Amino acid sequence: MKKETIKRIRDFTIDRDWDQFHSPANLAKSISIEANELLECFQWDEEHYNLEEVKEELADVLVYCVDMLDKLGLDADEIVNAKMDKNEKKYPVEKAKGKADKYNKL
Amino acid sequence: MKKETIKRIRDFTIDRDWDQFHSPANLAKSISIEANELLECFQWDEEHYNLEEVKEELADVLVYCVDMLDKLGLDADEIVNAKMDKNEKKYPVEKAKGKADKYNKL
Amino acid sequence: MKKETIKRIRDFTIDRDWDQFHSPANLAKSISIEANELLECFQWDEEHYNLEEVKEELADVLVYCVDMLDKLGLDADEIVNAKMDKNEKKYPVEKAKGKADKYNKL
Amino acid sequence: MKKETIKRIRDFTIDRDWDQFHSPANLAKSISIEANELLECFQWDEEHYNLEEVKEELADVLVYCVDMLDKLGLDADEIVNAKMDKNEKKYPVEKAKGKADKYNKL
Repeated sequence: MKKETIKRIRDFTIDRDWDQFHSPANLAKSISIEANELLECFQWDEEHYNLEEVKEELADVLVYCVDMLDKLGLDADEIVNAKMDKNEKKYPVEKAKGKADKYNKL
Repeated sequence: MKKETIKRIRDFTIDRDWDQFHSPANLAKSISIEANELLECFQWDEEHYNLEEVKEELADVLVYCVDMLDKLGLDADEIVNAKMDKNEKKYPVEKAKGKADKYNKL
Repeated sequence: MKKETIKRIRDFTIDRDWDQFHSPANLAKSISIEANELLECFQWDEEHYNLEEVKEELADVLVYCVDMLDKLGLDADEIVNAKMDKNEKKYPVEKAKGKADKYNKL
Repeated sequence: MKKETIKRIRDFTIDRDWDQFHSPANLAKSISIEANELLECFQWDEEHYNLEEVKEELADVLVYCVDMLDKLGLDADEIVNAKMDKNEKKYPVEKAKGKADKYNKL
């Protein structure tokens, strides 16, 4: 995401004095709530979804993720790369290729 | 997120031939599942969370969001800015300032 | 659910002095967390699920629902019947038959 | 829950010919979606929730749980008691009393 998009999300919160509501726990709830509005787009029919709704709900998830990164002073690239280091070890290509099993069942 | 981080997420999927599992519906489920592992960090105690666990679970949410953007050919900045346009109208500063109410209750 | 099963769930909490953690909000988080462990049984393959895992995760959801009913002094039959009254009006048979649309799109 | 309440939930589905949409995976998604509407009642303020909304959302979770038990031919008492057997072993009173730690951290 571009710096100006992240700044826009930040300013939205600051302008409304909403930082007081953005505890890490409240943001975790919010990410789950929005993730489930996204999931609702695929509740009964996984093929014929409304792309406009999907875009809006996925955007909501992303906005709260940015809020949480901000709140905790985290860098998205740093935490994702640290997790990818782990994922690459948990799911070595030769074992995981073409299989959807969890690492402890590979 | 930097281009090389996004590329790393993409390559991880391609190398394991996992694109076949990444239907939009499966990714929506995955975002919700990871969002709830994040929520679990705050299940019984919202103040004393384990920051290392929070970082890992938030990273997992972000990874699946990148997968979903990729799968649907979406641009994060574009969908977030389109949603922020709506949010700014739904929550005008003069009405929403300092209040956590939903827009339809403001 | 039988009275003795409900009593067993209650005693489990009382014996461990866990009522202090069972705020309505914490129980709501817990229901969502367990619902997502249930969802994880269907994450990548919706047909070939592990029935034993499904039973355990669904049981966890039910246990926290009982805890929440208890905490709020609610009766399951009462709240379900009140909701079914609404559902039957929102989804009249002649309109909803065979369609998975949300009531506002029928 | 009483037999007549369960029958009402069943008839609601049958009358609308909705059994075709009630795959176990779709019901798992639905339980998570409703659990998150319940969670939304506590999103920003965990103390001052709307009890009427809580009752409706908890009822929705219960309805989909009944649908899932039905779909899989499961008995609520049986699966809950089997899970309580495990929980009682995982969380022995002498270790778990007054602590919200996960069993693997006790």
